[in-house]
Formats: sequence, C-alpha cells, structure tokens
Amino acid sequence: MAKKQLPYVIGCDGGGTGCRVVLADAQGQVLARASGGPANATSDFALTITSLSAALAEAAAQTGLSPQALRASVAHFGLAGVVSPAVAAQVAAALPFDHITVTSDREVAVTGALGGADGVLLAIGTGTIVAAQRAGQRRDAGGWGLQLSDQASGGWLGRALLEQVLLCHDGLHPHSDLTRATLADFGAPLDMVLFAAQAQPADYARFAPQVIAAAQAGDAVGRGLMQRGAAYLDLALKAVGFMPDEVLCLTGGIGPHYAAYLAAPAQAAITAARGSGLDGALWLALATARGLRGGAA
Amino acid sequence: MAKKQLPYVIGCDGGGTGCRVVLADAQGQVLARASGGPANATSDFALTITSLSAALAEAAAQTGLSPQALRASVAHFGLAGVVSPAVAAQVAAALPFDHITVTSDREVAVTGALGGADGVLLAIGTGTIVAAQRAGQRRDAGGWGLQLSDQASGGWLGRALLEQVLLCHDGLHPHSDLTRATLADFGAPLDMVLFAAQAQPADYARFAPQVIAAAQAGDAVGRGLMQRGAAYLDLALKAVGFMPDEVLCLTGGIGPHYAAYLAAPAQAAITAARGSGLDGALWLALATARGLRGGAA
Repeated sequence: MAKKQLPYVIGCDGGGTGCRVVLADAQGQVLARASGGPANATSDFALTITSLSAALAEAAAQTGLSPQALRASVAHFGLAGVVSPAVAAQVAAALPFDHITVTSDREVAVTGALGGADGVLLAIGTGTIVAAQRAGQRRDAGGWGLQLSDQASGGWLGRALLEQVLLCHDGLHPHSDLTRATLADFGAPLDMVLFAAQAQPADYARFAPQVIAAAQAGDAVGRGLMQRGAAYLDLALKAVGFMPDEVLCLTGGIGPHYAAYLAAPAQAAITAARGSGLDGALWLALATARGLRGGAA
Repeated sequence: MAKKQLPYVIGCDGGGTGCRVVLADAQGQVLARASGGPANATSDFALTITSLSAALAEAAAQTGLSPQALRASVAHFGLAGVVSPAVAAQVAAALPFDHITVTSDREVAVTGALGGADGVLLAIGTGTIVAAQRAGQRRDAGGWGLQLSDQASGGWLGRALLEQVLLCHDGLHPHSDLTRATLADFGAPLDMVLFAAQAQPADYARFAPQVIAAAQAGDAVGRGLMQRGAAYLDLALKAVGFMPDEVLCLTGGIGPHYAAYLAAPAQAAITAARGSGLDGALWLALATARGLRGGAA
C-alpha cells in the first residue's frame, strides 16, 4: 500500500479589519502567505466567507496546489465574531476543507503570543482581547463587540474621538488640535454624524492612529482617550487576576501603544510575544495534523 | 364669490419610539388625536412615512374627513432625524399635504415647552434635546444621535446599563441588583450581545425605566448611570449659557426623572412646560395657517 501523503496545513487569523492566511507543509515550512478583507463572522458572515475565500485562493495560486490538495489540508481558523459553536460550525461548513477547526480569534491570539506557557495577553486591534492562561486554563474579560464592549480597541478609540469632537463643537469640552483637525477633515458635524450612522468598528478604527500620534505629541484629548483606554485595560488585568510576576504580552495593531499608559506593575511585566495570531493559528493546525497522523498510525 | 373654507390644521411630533398627530379646526379646536410607530427620518425613512401615514389615517377616520379636506390642511411635522433641509424636503414630498412644514423634533419641543418665551429646555426621551431660546434665537447642544451623542437619553441609559452588565459579568465592576436582574432576564451575556448587534435606540430605551426605578430605590449602578446622565446635562446647560434666573423645563419620558440629579441652580429653576412637543407642532401649524390667511386677505 502506498504511503499516504502528508496533508498541507493552513492557519488563518481574521479580525474586523482584515484576515491573513498561511499555508505550510506538514513540517510547518511556510509555502505561502496571503491576506484579505474583514472577517468578523457575526458582523457580516457573507463578507467573512468572501474575504477568507479570496485569501485562500491567493495562497493556493502562489503555490500551484490543486483544489484537491487544498481540500485535504488541516486548517485552523481563528476569527472575530465566532461567539458560539453554532457560528463556528456555520463557518466550517462554508469552507472547502475536510479537516477544519474554527475558533474565535482569541484562541489563536493567545496561542500565538504565549504558546502553551502561562501569561496574560492584551491583544488590541480593531477589537479587544484580554486573556490569562495558567496551566492550560483560560480566564477572559471583555471583547464582546463595540456596541457594548471592546473598550480600548481601535474601534473604541476612533468612536470616542468622534464623540469628543461633537462635545467640543457643542462647547461642553475645549477643542484640541486633534478634535479641530478631525472636524475639519469631515467638513461639518453633520457629515460626521452621517458617517457614524453607517460605520462599522473597522471604519472607526481608521482614526485610532491619529489618536495615538496626537497623544504622543501631547494633545490633551488624545492623551485623555489613551488614558481612558488604559484605565479599562488595568481594570481588565485585575479582573483576570494578573500578578506582577507574570508574563504580559501586548499585541495587535494598537496593543503596544498602550504600554506607556498602563499602571507601573503591568508596564514592568511586558514581554515580547512568541508569535502573532497567525502563528498561533498555524501552530494549532500543526498540532491537529500531528494528532490526526498519530491517530492513523 | 363663495367664502373660501378655512383649512384644517395638523400637528405632529415624531421621535425614535413613536409619533403623535393632532387634527384641529382653523381655530385650534382639537378634532382628533392619534399615535403611530417610530418616526426618525434618518434611522429609517420608509418606516417613518409608514408610521406617520398610519397615524394620519387614524386621525382622519376619527373625524370622517375626506382625503381632499386632509390634503388642504396646514401641517407642521417635527420629527427626529430631520438633520438637514434635504431630509425635511424628502419627508414633505412623501406626505399628502398642500401646506406642510417639516422641522426636527427640537423645534416643536421648544415651542411646546416655552411658547415664544425665553428659557431653556431639556427634552429627554429616546433621544436628547438641549436648547436655549432667548429673544427668538436658539442655542443648541447635543442630540446628534446615539452612535456619537444623545448622552442622558433613554437610549443612552439603556445601552449604558447593558455595558455595565458586561463589566460586572467580567469582574471589572461589582454587580448590583439591577445588573444581576438585567443579565438574568437575558439569560446569558451572549444573548445580550446578540440583542445589541441589532438594537435601535428605541430598543435600548426600553431598559431606561428599570434604570430610573433602580436609582430611586438606591441601586448603586442605577444611581451611577443617572448621575452620569445628569453630569452631561449640567455641562450641556453650561454650554447653552443657562443662568439660574432663567426658566428651565424638563420634558419627554425621561427628562423629569433627572430633576433630583441636576446641580442645585438648575433644580431650583425647573418650571412646568407650557405644553408638549405635540402642542408645539399644533401651535406652529396654526401660526402658519394664520399667515396663509393673512397673505390671502
């Protein structure tokens, strides 16, 4: 009997702004990387599948693999908005893999940053992930989406900026360079209000870099927003039981920018992450592939 | 030549939760009152026209007036979400009147509460209206819609409660009877998050009575939310130049409940409103009708 071909392995990390996939051989050697559009399975399921499919097609095209070889891969997808097993099953059913595991982006972020080791993660991108991992057990806080949660995230920072702009325009708070420039970019308050009526978290998150840069330059409103975000993160760290002797990783597009605003014990505990959420997804897929081979032996 | 028949007069006050219409004769004698569904022209234009048409049909049915008599009425519609002349024109074009004026609900709320007199209004329902009227000039603050504004409103109170419930569930803040009961009503945090993914301001505003009642009963979270709302209103009063010797009216379903939480000078200035927003709409329509008759004389 011919030796069964080892499967390819696929990892994917998807968030509100975009998704990234990595395709590797059975030893974890990376063959292709590709990225695509937003992948929040709860906010927009159809767009999520479109984004993922485009990124997968791009990765396949880079390697010249047949559709059949791709289907036989072992895949781990970690996506924003996978809030229940039902959503995970819906995503898995919509993608062309024989062996696929779908989790929230929290799982791949924690595995990427900490591997299997103990520690605490603040992964702040379009949304917010706060998670502690101790002896393989997780303790989570926040990250329930921008409507009611996701404090400190890029989406939250951007929306909070626009709220401040209106408060300044109405004379309740004093303008700063940041609020004046933001209002000038829109032209009039009403244009900002009409933007917000349609805005998704990723749309708000596009203003986060301006908040971060203004805060660094000493802008009072920018600093105030970063301090409010950091105050939430300090409370969330307390809620997941963070202790000063633990490892603390700050990842995501926004996370590292909070370093200077956190309470001193948290600042002192900051350690470089082992890898990205995409690395975490690949490692989880490789672990599943090893398990499948082990089970077949 | 036969004396021209005096037109009927129609007033309408529409907000995020519902709309009310009043039909009167040319002397202002009320012939019928009716109410209908939500009327926020920006959030949902089609629903607004449906709600208004249903309320108008109900008022017409009560009086047995012909469609032609209704068309010849002089109407004033004050609606939430009329944020520009373009939206006002769109509403006017969709309704069957020869003489119709469409403004935001702010105009009819101010006229209803103050008539033409000087004073300051806090009209807090599903949304927020803060307006000062002095010598016929208006000065406004806030009320830009729940996405970025409408602090202290019913929609804001309800959404702020659900945010607090998640913060308590995650262990960042201590639970109170109010947050425990709210979470128990939903069953699980995820059900609340899925509710929020679809919720309009009026959906959130349905939780405002529970916040108000809990605050009255001394619930710490309930009191905290009312105090945050009142702190916004105190700042907004300052922004529109409120002085302690002015008249201050608190109207809307939520407004009067803030009386006890406002700063002392504001509390001391509270005066009963002359009328409701619906009264204001009718008075504005009657003024227009008098002007039309005067112009024809």
